[in-house]
Amino acid sequence: MIFWKFFFNNLVSQHSFNKHSESKDQLLIRNIPYKNTVINIHFNTDKQINLSELEKLCDTVGWVRRPLPKVYIAIKYSIVVISLFYKINLTKNLIGFARATSDYAFNATIWDVVVHPDFQGYGLGSALMHQLVRILRNQDINTITLFADPHVISFYHNLGFISNPDGVKGMFWYPR
Amino acid sequence: MIFWKFFFNNLVSQHSFNKHSESKDQLLIRNIPYKNTVINIHFNTDKQINLSELEKLCDTVGWVRRPLPKVYIAIKYSIVVISLFYKINLTKNLIGFARATSDYAFNATIWDVVVHPDFQGYGLGSALMHQLVRILRNQDINTITLFADPHVISFYHNLGFISNPDGVKGMFWYPR
Repeated sequence: MIFWKFFFNNLVSQHSFNKHSESKDQLLIRNIPYKNTVINIHFNTDKQINLSELEKLCDTVGWVRRPLPKVYIAIKYSIVVISLFYKINLTKNLIGFARATSDYAFNATIWDVVVHPDFQGYGLGSALMHQLVRILRNQDINTITLFADPHVISFYHNLGFISNPDGVKGMFWYPR
Repeated sequence: MIFWKFFFNNLVSQHSFNKHSESKDQLLIRNIPYKNTVINIHFNTDKQINLSELEKLCDTVGWVRRPLPKVYIAIKYSIVVISLFYKINLTKNLIGFARATSDYAFNATIWDVVVHPDFQGYGLGSALMHQLVRILRNQDINTITLFADPHVISFYHNLGFISNPDGVKGMFWYPR
């Protein structure tokens, strides 16, 4: 029993909500046209996100504003957050975001996928999702789920997501 | 900036994966007939679950067995786990289980809802779900989601869950 406890605790200690092994900036897509020039898009999985900048990004796609302290908690307790940005000099400009919750063992659920409208149509959404799925797979998560609005169902379908497989339905409970 | 960091960190410290404020045994339903007598069903939200007992419970409903170390991690990183049991003398006999993952802020997703077949038909599944929703609502989670197999969609519907609201669809990605 003591051995198992030690074994389990060792396993669990490999999973931390405060660190992530892959937080350095990585090149995602080169030469996206922007304002009479071309830029490179990078991504990282750093949880130290400027929440005002994230809020502005979400504004561009018309999302309802959410209390920043709750956004901070949601990021903290997501298994992965992924940010897309371009750099001008040393400044990073956030243009994409997604995150996933998980039990760190079997399932993950993806939330808050957003790409700035100025940068849509260049495959950034697909590239973002490929990275997110890859990172979750690297953490041995087998079942990756999400809830898709009608206008993005075909987008996720093209990435290999299946809607209502074997009649399984996504269901929601909201406060009345 | 320092104030906000202090404020955020204080908020986050209220959420811990190792403690839960509501882990004592509570009476759920009285006088369920069982083996020529009647028993009372209790629940708690203790994460210290006997994993072999949980595995046996899942066997009774025909679920595929899963590696116990991964089950341990999944329980550890669930925002809530809830167990149903009856007591004989001081021994607790596990007869129901459910858990939820969450970002501790906006969303929770319910997984692994199970009631032992010998105890189905007495409203225990509904009572279990009511407690789970109540606990998540007490933690200020507004959107509670799940993925329902076809034969339990009406069960969840009767509990107030809506399938595919506004055309939103649950989607799955599995390794190929």
